[in-house]
Amino acid sequence: MAEHMIKVEKWDIFEEKFKGPQKGNPFIDVSLVAVFKHEKSKIEVEGFYDGDGIYKIRMMPEYEGEWSYTTTSNYPELDKIEGQFNVIKASNNNHGIIKVHNTYHFVYTDGTLYYPMGTTCYAWIYQNDKLQERTLQTLKNAAFNKIRMCVFPKHYDYNHNEPSRYPFEGSLESGFDFTRFKPEFFRHLEMRILELQKLGIECDLILFHPYDRWGFCDMGRENDDRYVRYVIARLAAFRNIWWSVANEFDLMVSKKEKDWDRFFHIMQRYDAYQHLKSIHNCKKIYDHSKPWITHCSLQAQEPYKIKNYMEKWRTVSKKPVVIDECAYEGNINHGWGNISGQEMTRRFWEGTLRGAYVGHGETYMHPEEILWWSHGGELYGTSPTRIAFLKKVLEEGPEEGLSPIKYAWDVLCGGVEGKYYIFYFGLNRPSFVEFKLPDGIKYKVQIIDTWEMTINELRGTFQGDFKINMPGKEYIAVRAISIE
Amino acid sequence: MAEHMIKVEKWDIFEEKFKGPQKGNPFIDVSLVAVFKHEKSKIEVEGFYDGDGIYKIRMMPEYEGEWSYTTTSNYPELDKIEGQFNVIKASNNNHGIIKVHNTYHFVYTDGTLYYPMGTTCYAWIYQNDKLQERTLQTLKNAAFNKIRMCVFPKHYDYNHNEPSRYPFEGSLESGFDFTRFKPEFFRHLEMRILELQKLGIECDLILFHPYDRWGFCDMGRENDDRYVRYVIARLAAFRNIWWSVANEFDLMVSKKEKDWDRFFHIMQRYDAYQHLKSIHNCKKIYDHSKPWITHCSLQAQEPYKIKNYMEKWRTVSKKPVVIDECAYEGNINHGWGNISGQEMTRRFWEGTLRGAYVGHGETYMHPEEILWWSHGGELYGTSPTRIAFLKKVLEEGPEEGLSPIKYAWDVLCGGVEGKYYIFYFGLNRPSFVEFKLPDGIKYKVQIIDTWEMTINELRGTFQGDFKINMPGKEYIAVRAISIE
Repeated sequence: MAEHMIKVEKWDIFEEKFKGPQKGNPFIDVSLVAVFKHEKSKIEVEGFYDGDGIYKIRMMPEYEGEWSYTTTSNYPELDKIEGQFNVIKASNNNHGIIKVHNTYHFVYTDGTLYYPMGTTCYAWIYQNDKLQERTLQTLKNAAFNKIRMCVFPKHYDYNHNEPSRYPFEGSLESGFDFTRFKPEFFRHLEMRILELQKLGIECDLILFHPYDRWGFCDMGRENDDRYVRYVIARLAAFRNIWWSVANEFDLMVSKKEKDWDRFFHIMQRYDAYQHLKSIHNCKKIYDHSKPWITHCSLQAQEPYKIKNYMEKWRTVSKKPVVIDECAYEGNINHGWGNISGQEMTRRFWEGTLRGAYVGHGETYMHPEEILWWSHGGELYGTSPTRIAFLKKVLEEGPEEGLSPIKYAWDVLCGGVEGKYYIFYFGLNRPSFVEFKLPDGIKYKVQIIDTWEMTINELRGTFQGDFKINMPGKEYIAVRAISIE
Repeated sequence: MAEHMIKVEKWDIFEEKFKGPQKGNPFIDVSLVAVFKHEKSKIEVEGFYDGDGIYKIRMMPEYEGEWSYTTTSNYPELDKIEGQFNVIKASNNNHGIIKVHNTYHFVYTDGTLYYPMGTTCYAWIYQNDKLQERTLQTLKNAAFNKIRMCVFPKHYDYNHNEPSRYPFEGSLESGFDFTRFKPEFFRHLEMRILELQKLGIECDLILFHPYDRWGFCDMGRENDDRYVRYVIARLAAFRNIWWSVANEFDLMVSKKEKDWDRFFHIMQRYDAYQHLKSIHNCKKIYDHSKPWITHCSLQAQEPYKIKNYMEKWRTVSKKPVVIDECAYEGNINHGWGNISGQEMTRRFWEGTLRGAYVGHGETYMHPEEILWWSHGGELYGTSPTRIAFLKKVLEEGPEEGLSPIKYAWDVLCGGVEGKYYIFYFGLNRPSFVEFKLPDGIKYKVQIIDTWEMTINELRGTFQGDFKINMPGKEYIAVRAISIE
C-alpha cells in the first residue's frame, strides 16, 4: 500500500474531480462513467457535471482495502482516467447504509439495528439559512433518525415564499431550463445531507411531488429521467440517502404508473448501492410488492386505517411498513394537520405494535408561518419526547425486532413469542389485567406509561396465567421479558 | 256512554282479571284469548295465568272511545266473557308507543319526536330493593330515555350474586321447571317497567342472553316459545316496551338462526301493537334487513367500526341504526368496559353524525361490585352529562332528524341539506376552518364544545364560503342553521 494513496473511510464518499468541456450543454453532451474495482467488488457509477468545467465522480466504498477505477467518456479528456485509493475501517458513528432486516425491520450494514423514527421537514432547505441552522439544532436535540425532505421547492398552503436557490437554471418569471442543473443548489443540498448524516439522521429524499408552481412536477419524460440520473450520480454515494420517488405520487396526474416504474428501473440500473427506495401515496397506494420497492411508505391519516390495512400491507408486500404520514401534531385547518400529541403518540404505539414504523410531523400555527412539517425551525409539540421514549423502548427490545402477535381482541401485542412481549392498551384503561403467557417461562413484567414515559418493574417474576394491577389510565403498555 | 264504565287512558293498560282453574299446570293447560273491538280497530291478545287461580288479560288501547271485548278459552269459566270500557285522551306525559320515523329516526305515536339516548342496567331488577330504588333515583336525574335490561338473571364477571326471585319455579340447586312461570317475579318486573315509564324511559327488554348458570339460555324450543308468548301476553300492553330478542345472540350456541326468526314470528303474531323489535350481536350481525326487524341494534366496540360499517348498516337495512353497545365508560379489565368519558362522548357524536343513535353504559370498578352497566346504582362517569347535552342539541334540531351529509374527508357532517348542518371535528383540532355552504342561504353559526357543553353563537350571518376561527381543541362541533 503506497503511503501517499488517498484514504477514505468505508461507507464515506470517495470523490474525484476532473477538468472537462464547458461548451454546449455539458449536462447533456458529456457522458462520464467510472468503474471501481476491489478484489471483492466491481461497481460502476455515473459521474456528473458540477459547473465551471468541473466533472466529478463519487463513490461509496463498501469494502476496506485497495480500490482502483477507470473512467469512460465520450470526451477524450475525461476518458480512461485511472486512479487508486485506499479504504480504511469505518469510524465509530459510521454504520454504513441501511438495509432491510428480518423481512419487516431495518439494520445498518455493520449490523447495528436501526428503528426508523422519522419526521418531515419537506422544504427546509428552501428556508433562509438561519432557519436551516435552527432546524439542524432542533434535530440535534431530538430523537428523530430519518427526515423526509424534497429536492424540489414546495408550493402549498403555508408554503408561498419564493426560494433563493433552484435546482435548474432559470426563474419563476422567465421559466426554467430543465436541461441545465444548478450545481450550487445541489452543493447546498449535499451540505445539508451531510449535516444530517453527522446527526445520525437518514435523508428520505423525495424526488417528485405535486405541490408545484415552477413546472418541476411536469418536465416531461426525458428531463425527468435525466434529473433522476443526475440526482443518483451526485447523491447515491451518501450513505444516509433513502429514495422516496414521490410524495403523494397519485396526485401527480401528468405521470402514470409506467413513469413511476421507470424511475425505479433507473435507480436499479444506476444506484450502485441499492439504497432503500419507496414511494408515498395520497389515496391510491402504489403496489409495494413490486420487486424494486424495499419497504412500504404509506400515508394513513385516519386512525382506523392502520388497524384496517396493516395486516394486508405486511402480508402482501412482505417488506417493512413505514407509515410516513399518520397525520401531524398541530392545529392547522386541515384534518391531516391538527391531532394532539397524545393521539400522535397513540398512533406511533399502535403502528409499532402492529408491526410498522410510524413517522412524525408537526403543524402548529405560527405567526411567521414556520411550521416544522415543511419549514423546520422549532418543535412545539408534546409527541417528540414520547417518540424518543418509544425509540428507547425499541432499542432495548429483541434484535429480531417486534412482530405483531395475535393475543386478544382488546389489546395490541407485539414481540417475539415466548421471549418478549409488549402489550399496548391505547384508549383502554383497565384497572387490572389477567395475562396468559406460555407456561414454563419466567418473565419480568414492567408497566410502561407511554405518555408519562415511566417504566415500573413489578416485584417478582411471572409465568403462565397471572393478574397484574394497572393504572386505569389511557396509553399504558405492559412489557414482559423472559429471564432465562 | 255509561257513567259507570271503566275509563282507561289511551296507550295505558286496560286490565281485567278472572277466576279460573288452578289444577294441573294452568300455564300449559289453559288457553285464553280476548278480542277487543273499537269502531276503528279490532285486536286480539292472549291472556295469562297470574297464579292463585287468577287469569288476566291486558290490552293497550290505541284509540279513544268505546271498546268491548270477548274472551275465548278452552275452559268454560273463562270462555265468552264480555266487557266494555271507555278510552280517554292521553295525559300530558303519555305519548304512546314509539315507531320508526323518516326511515332512520323515531317518533312517539302522538308525533312527539324521540331521540334514543340509551343506557344499560342489564340485571338491575335482580339487585336488592334498595339498590333498585337508587337506580330509579339516578335515572330520574339523568337524561337517558331508554334502558337495556334482561328478563333473565345474569351470570358473568361481576355478576355472581344469586337472585332472590326467578322467572320460573325452582332453584339453582333443584333445577327449574320451565313450564311454570313465577307470577310474582313478573309482577316485580312490571312494576319496574311502569316506574321507568313514569320517568319517560323506554324499556328495551332483552328476552334471551348467553350469560347463564340456571339453564334459561337453553330451555328447548317448546319452553322458549311459551316463554316468549307469556312475556308478550304480560308486557306488550306496556307502551314503553321494546323487544330485544337477545343480547349477543351469536354467543348462544344452542339456538340457530331459525330459532331467532321464529321468536320474531311469534312477536309478529302475538304482539298486537308491533313494538319496536331487534336483536343484538357480539361478532356476527343478524340480518337486520329481515322484515320483522324494526331497527338495527348493534354492538360495535372498536371505534373504527362505526366508521367502517355505518353506511352499510344504514343502506342495507334502510332502518334506524341504534349502536346499543359502543363500549362502556369505565375501568374494568375488559376492553369493552374501560374507555374514558371523552371517548364515550366522541363515539356518541361520531355515531350521531353518521346517522345512528348511540347507547351508553358504565363499568367503573366498585368496592361492592356495583357497576351501573349491569346493576344500576349510581353513575360515576363523565359522559352522561355530555350525552344529556347532545340530546338537547338533537331536540333543538330539525324534525326530520339528522342525516349524514358527505362534506369533507376530515369532518363529519350531519343535518338537512341547505337548512341545518352540524360539523363534528372529533380528535381534530383546527384553529380555523373554511366552510363551503350552499350560496344564497344565510346561516347563523354556533361553535359547540361538546365536552365543555357550551354553545357560542358567532356574530353576524354566514353564507357560501366563509372562514371561522375555532378553539383549536378536540371535541368541537359547529352548527349552521338557516335563518329564512
